[in-house]
Amino acid sequence: MKVFIIGTGLIGGSLALDIQEKYSEAVIYGVDANDEALTEAKELNIIHKKATFADLNIADIVIVSTPVDVAITLIPKVLDEVTDTCLVLDVGSTKEKICDVLKEHPKRRNFLATHPIAGTEFSGPKAALKNLYKGKTNIICEVEKTAFKLQEKALEIFSNIGMRIRYMDAKSHDKHIAYVSHLSHISSFMLGKTVIEKEKNERDIFDMAGSGFASTVRLAKSSPDMWTPIFEQNKENVIETLNEYIQNLHYFKQLIEEDKFSEIHSEMKNTNHIKQILNGIKEVKLQ
Amino acid sequence: MKVFIIGTGLIGGSLALDIQEKYSEAVIYGVDANDEALTEAKELNIIHKKATFADLNIADIVIVSTPVDVAITLIPKVLDEVTDTCLVLDVGSTKEKICDVLKEHPKRRNFLATHPIAGTEFSGPKAALKNLYKGKTNIICEVEKTAFKLQEKALEIFSNIGMRIRYMDAKSHDKHIAYVSHLSHISSFMLGKTVIEKEKNERDIFDMAGSGFASTVRLAKSSPDMWTPIFEQNKENVIETLNEYIQNLHYFKQLIEEDKFSEIHSEMKNTNHIKQILNGIKEVKLQ
Repeated sequence: MKVFIIGTGLIGGSLALDIQEKYSEAVIYGVDANDEALTEAKELNIIHKKATFADLNIADIVIVSTPVDVAITLIPKVLDEVTDTCLVLDVGSTKEKICDVLKEHPKRRNFLATHPIAGTEFSGPKAALKNLYKGKTNIICEVEKTAFKLQEKALEIFSNIGMRIRYMDAKSHDKHIAYVSHLSHISSFMLGKTVIEKEKNERDIFDMAGSGFASTVRLAKSSPDMWTPIFEQNKENVIETLNEYIQNLHYFKQLIEEDKFSEIHSEMKNTNHIKQILNGIKEVKLQ
Repeated sequence: MKVFIIGTGLIGGSLALDIQEKYSEAVIYGVDANDEALTEAKELNIIHKKATFADLNIADIVIVSTPVDVAITLIPKVLDEVTDTCLVLDVGSTKEKICDVLKEHPKRRNFLATHPIAGTEFSGPKAALKNLYKGKTNIICEVEKTAFKLQEKALEIFSNIGMRIRYMDAKSHDKHIAYVSHLSHISSFMLGKTVIEKEKNERDIFDMAGSGFASTVRLAKSSPDMWTPIFEQNKENVIETLNEYIQNLHYFKQLIEEDKFSEIHSEMKNTNHIKQILNGIKEVKLQ
């Protein structure tokens, strides 16, 4: 089984490691615009061989794990290159635009749109982790547009690396993911910005910030190369979430300004309900 | 050494556990408005004896670890009850109001204003943890107003349980802590609220939310009883941080609306600098 990973960073690299582990016969070919990253991926044994676009005609599976702006121009070309039995899948955090771009492609049935909900705030080959996907959810969009045999192949791999599958239309995916992922990244980045701007003397941050701050601002370490095109491709949904978030913050501030502290208490009490939701996430993930 | 813990929850209970560990001769007396919590604290061996306000005259040390609205009315009365050689300290997340209330108190020199920067999102006696304070920072305000011998006693205890000390005036404490702690809690609560409101069908959250969302929204599990009076006592600073945070979110949204994605990239790139700050926190904490 010849598996091509285009983009050998956190997401693609982690997939490569898990596939190697589960499929001893698999040969992993790496393709990356950044040759330094590719060399690093080879040295870290994430990939077996360096490859180029011209080699795609020997691939059984191609996983495109580049930033989503690159993926959207790259995947049509990848499909042009591969054989009729090759499975091409993406792993991006936006699904509507890529599905739309590919809808008339003659090899649309070779493509599967996926979004493995897994990652860390780090990036590049060094960030790749074994078992990153174990117990996590993979969202598959427009499954009916993929050839049945290729669906089967993909599902077998995802199942072997420990993922649960959930099917969703691309539009719903982008809408929900804006709330549970994209908004968290923006709230974290802007929290980091607000504090950095204020605290020019960073010793004050070092000394006074606790684990709560570290947790809330963790996603502000994420890669701008990865996240800028996500916000661009999911612009409308992200703006909607931001409008609602800003409105809620305004309202909370207004309650403080007007000394309505029993309402402040209720706001927090009602939101404590997130405990059950987070426990739900944990339980589901541990299955 | 007779140590009274008034408020036997996460913060007071954890202090009690560490003091027991380091001072085998210490007898820990618990006082709590909630008798159920007190019984629980006794059963969990957080305290040795249940006590009441009337017993305070035998105390060598009194640690007031109640919500800050309770502390502000309670501490003057505690000082009225204790002997001249007793150390009374608070552990609240706001320092200006309590220092102000006590500034003319005849026993002001028996009081030390402290803020151990440690905790979790949980509360009550069951949330108490051994070694919660190890390697953490304790901020002490207006140290010069406390009798020298009592300062020494407090510092010895903090040092024995592994805390680093930082001195700060109460006004500066409240200003900085609004940025690195209070704002994080509000951003997290409002993020939780925004997502819960939208996602009435919670299965969608369960399945799509990853560890990033869990991390960013973790503080929204915090106790409203504890946090409402903190926001009330630090109202002006909290409003200031919220104004700046909302302004930054607005600006980010505007950049998205106007398709200024290279500016979006710069905003995130500049904020990535939080990595070094967070590493700084970690290193300092690990010392």
